[in-house]
Amino acid sequence: MRVGVLGSGDVGRMLGRGFVAKGHEVMIGSRSPKSEALQTWRAEVGAKGSTGTFAESATFGELLVLSVQGAAVATAIDLAGPESFAGKIVLDTTNALDFSKGMPPGLFVGLTDSLGEQIQRKLPKARVVKCFNIVPNSLMVDPKVAGGPPDMMICGNDVAAKARTVEILKAFGWPGAIDLGGIENARWLEALVPLWVRVAASLNAWNSAFKILRG
Amino acid sequence: MRVGVLGSGDVGRMLGRGFVAKGHEVMIGSRSPKSEALQTWRAEVGAKGSTGTFAESATFGELLVLSVQGAAVATAIDLAGPESFAGKIVLDTTNALDFSKGMPPGLFVGLTDSLGEQIQRKLPKARVVKCFNIVPNSLMVDPKVAGGPPDMMICGNDVAAKARTVEILKAFGWPGAIDLGGIENARWLEALVPLWVRVAASLNAWNSAFKILRG
Repeated sequence: MRVGVLGSGDVGRMLGRGFVAKGHEVMIGSRSPKSEALQTWRAEVGAKGSTGTFAESATFGELLVLSVQGAAVATAIDLAGPESFAGKIVLDTTNALDFSKGMPPGLFVGLTDSLGEQIQRKLPKARVVKCFNIVPNSLMVDPKVAGGPPDMMICGNDVAAKARTVEILKAFGWPGAIDLGGIENARWLEALVPLWVRVAASLNAWNSAFKILRG
Repeated sequence: MRVGVLGSGDVGRMLGRGFVAKGHEVMIGSRSPKSEALQTWRAEVGAKGSTGTFAESATFGELLVLSVQGAAVATAIDLAGPESFAGKIVLDTTNALDFSKGMPPGLFVGLTDSLGEQIQRKLPKARVVKCFNIVPNSLMVDPKVAGGPPDMMICGNDVAAKARTVEILKAFGWPGAIDLGGIENARWLEALVPLWVRVAASLNAWNSAFKILRG
């Protein structure tokens, strides 16, 4: 499968590495496709990895990953070309963290909307699945943590897209995912991340993650 | 210790039972202190349990527990008499769940305020600790769940009050608590509960709870 990863930060490079490791071809899309960080990434992942503009990456991918900063989501989609998302599964890993008042962060969307919903509204023909936003990038692929595995929680409007996402998660070493329902549930997945930051800071354990104890 | 529990719902009766079981005297405060549910509760817990008005319970308790419905918090405090809270530890278990649009719930406070903060502002001399709001009442005392114990997360402005709360939690069978800092962090503990509802519904596992995998 060809995967377009929009965003070249820690999350994008980690997931890009993960998709390559699982046998897929990955093009990371970036404003600076020849940056040092991306050249290092290409050297590391080998021939199945490439870099390009947002538009090139969005055209390339049969499956797309949105991993830009939350505040840059709309711009990145505009640069990529909204028509390139039509019909594709879009894994939305973004968070609406607001650091304008320093650490720890708040959210710049309220609780009656979310980035997940904004993305789905902006891309009505895309099959958006909120995924990966609640875990640190260190645990996104083959998560190893004491007492694990942690739980991935996802949501989205397209049942088949979520089923495919669960397959991807299993290939990435996850046991599956807890499906919260439609994309509007992204509000609560995004609101979990400021809590995660506070927990990680309190414990000084930045590779921590949530597990649901089923009772 | 004398404990005043304001609110006679499932949470109040469970915590009241827990405090009695750990050797304390408990008066549950209610608008209907002679209700059938409270008569049953009194018969069950024995001589160390009593019921009264909100005002009687707030006067009685050296430590107070707020366990009314979120929308009733301000009224309950007014009925109890704000002066009775001065200097006391107040365990705030409340949630701002908004069921006005049906299930699953939203929150009727935004993300720039919380019930915990509202209570602390209304009771500036009280030592408010947000506690117990993130777990189902079935797990509040001697929590038993596969893979457990789950994690309790607390916050509040008074360090000594939080230390005393951790002692209480340990007596209640918890390993301790993750301290998130000041009461403003209640925003994120309260925002965890709509997520908990969605997770519990997805798994059909209503006695579930969150655990932090430390990494």
